[in-house]
Amino acid sequence: VIAVLAGGVGAARFLAGLVRVVDPAEVTAIVNVADDLELHGLHISPDLDTVTYTLARQIDPERGWGLSSETWQAMETLRRLGGATWFNLGDRDLGTHLYRTHRLHEGADLSTVTAEIAKGWGVGLRLLPATNDRLRTMVTLADDGSEVGFQEYFVERRHGVAVSAVRFEGADEAEAGPGTIDAIEQASAVVIAPSNPLVSIAPVLALHEVRRAVESRRADTVAVSPIIAGRALKGPADRLLVELGHEPSVVGVARLYAPLAATLVIDEADHELADRVRAEGVDCLVTRTVMTDATAAAELASRVIGANR
Amino acid sequence: VIAVLAGGVGAARFLAGLVRVVDPAEVTAIVNVADDLELHGLHISPDLDTVTYTLARQIDPERGWGLSSETWQAMETLRRLGGATWFNLGDRDLGTHLYRTHRLHEGADLSTVTAEIAKGWGVGLRLLPATNDRLRTMVTLADDGSEVGFQEYFVERRHGVAVSAVRFEGADEAEAGPGTIDAIEQASAVVIAPSNPLVSIAPVLALHEVRRAVESRRADTVAVSPIIAGRALKGPADRLLVELGHEPSVVGVARLYAPLAATLVIDEADHELADRVRAEGVDCLVTRTVMTDATAAAELASRVIGANR
Repeated sequence: VIAVLAGGVGAARFLAGLVRVVDPAEVTAIVNVADDLELHGLHISPDLDTVTYTLARQIDPERGWGLSSETWQAMETLRRLGGATWFNLGDRDLGTHLYRTHRLHEGADLSTVTAEIAKGWGVGLRLLPATNDRLRTMVTLADDGSEVGFQEYFVERRHGVAVSAVRFEGADEAEAGPGTIDAIEQASAVVIAPSNPLVSIAPVLALHEVRRAVESRRADTVAVSPIIAGRALKGPADRLLVELGHEPSVVGVARLYAPLAATLVIDEADHELADRVRAEGVDCLVTRTVMTDATAAAELASRVIGANR
Repeated sequence: VIAVLAGGVGAARFLAGLVRVVDPAEVTAIVNVADDLELHGLHISPDLDTVTYTLARQIDPERGWGLSSETWQAMETLRRLGGATWFNLGDRDLGTHLYRTHRLHEGADLSTVTAEIAKGWGVGLRLLPATNDRLRTMVTLADDGSEVGFQEYFVERRHGVAVSAVRFEGADEAEAGPGTIDAIEQASAVVIAPSNPLVSIAPVLALHEVRRAVESRRADTVAVSPIIAGRALKGPADRLLVELGHEPSVVGVARLYAPLAATLVIDEADHELADRVRAEGVDCLVTRTVMTDATAAAELASRVIGANR
């Protein structure tokens, strides 16, 4: 089994590549749920859904999130009524949230419901929420020192404001989700997907058991840098690194992951930084990491799982 | 002001007629909420929505419930996931439930939210939930003596099973909704709309304050029989009357409403029963009550509000 710590879009693309080169049944994704939100009474799990929809080949290719052939009738009504419309919920997508919320109300845990949803969408790999407990990424805005939920920062403010701190509410009490520790301990390789290290991977690692388990597998763990030539392909990872005192480069990423991963995979664009990465105490594999299409993603996945062999 | 005790489809059509003959601002509808349900985490108020959508001229004319130009993408996803699909939720309609649920979670009461939704849909009359408290119609099935929520009986089992009892859970504790008692007390006329007497009007009257207020206005109260020639135009009112020990005719309806209404309006088809209705101690107005279109509804409304003058 290959265990993959995963956030949203980047991780989803990586996983879609990975299941082209290994049997999906041999892949376990441990997915961030700290950017889940309760909205309009519904439990929404953006990263789980992005992974599910991508693996189901139902993701909207233009937006990178949400379902293809989506319609927006419910939002249109919400708009008419003057409701909260900052978080876009497509009509097809809503069915997933209705299902999840219904099952959680019935007393099912998020792991169980996630497996049901993945199965319903025809996803072959094993999809595990990092935790079934409440864990929430809270973001302090530099501007006025106010603290907001992750989606308020990410979606409502379009991650266009400076951040002074990030914390993971509930991390000390939350237990690692069922199956996650076993998957990490028994994996032939652990992969940290090219997701935002500070707000997608960090909340997974904020679960003490998960962090300890990954640390114990350091020799078999490969991280893929989401930073290429100092930039995030998507999202605010580059700015967040600066704002939270890290170097916005593969070297900064290497510093964050050195206690966890023996190897960091960086893009060819950063080949000149390979020695600086190695100076942080990690092996450095230089390859093409931009997943322009499924073939590129599969090639990256192939390189990543071969990195420690 | 004319105060109208209202259920769903029949009441909605009557109200649509009424606002053609009197200023909508002079109409207060006090609407059944005992068939509300929580489903998938959402608070759904079927009767309030049927009245709102009908008055907004957005009701689907074929189905008689839900919105016109509706789509069913969320249901399609729910079906794919094997979720609970017995209660149909259109995509446009879902926006209303999302809004209501969101506002209730914020701490707004149902009266406030109902007014906001009515305004958003451009409804001119005053729409009041019978209560802001939890009130639920519970139905005992004759078959096995099990008790189910109203919508499970009405929608999931398509009211195709015999009923041995109906009760209104919460009625003793629930308070009449803000404005309802004042509306009844100060109205120039009180109307009991042509709704199911046992499961649409009865739960409104199960609120002790409402029942007392209507009783005190008996001389100015007109009820419209939903039973025509022994049949309900829609729904199970006729069968329920039989199953719960009432006569399934305008005479049975007269018996139920005699303590509350000085006048019962019956259809021309029942003209031979007028004397038997009067024998129950109510005046009887015979007119055309089938609301085949808006004009017919307006004519009925006109007769009803003129009945006690």
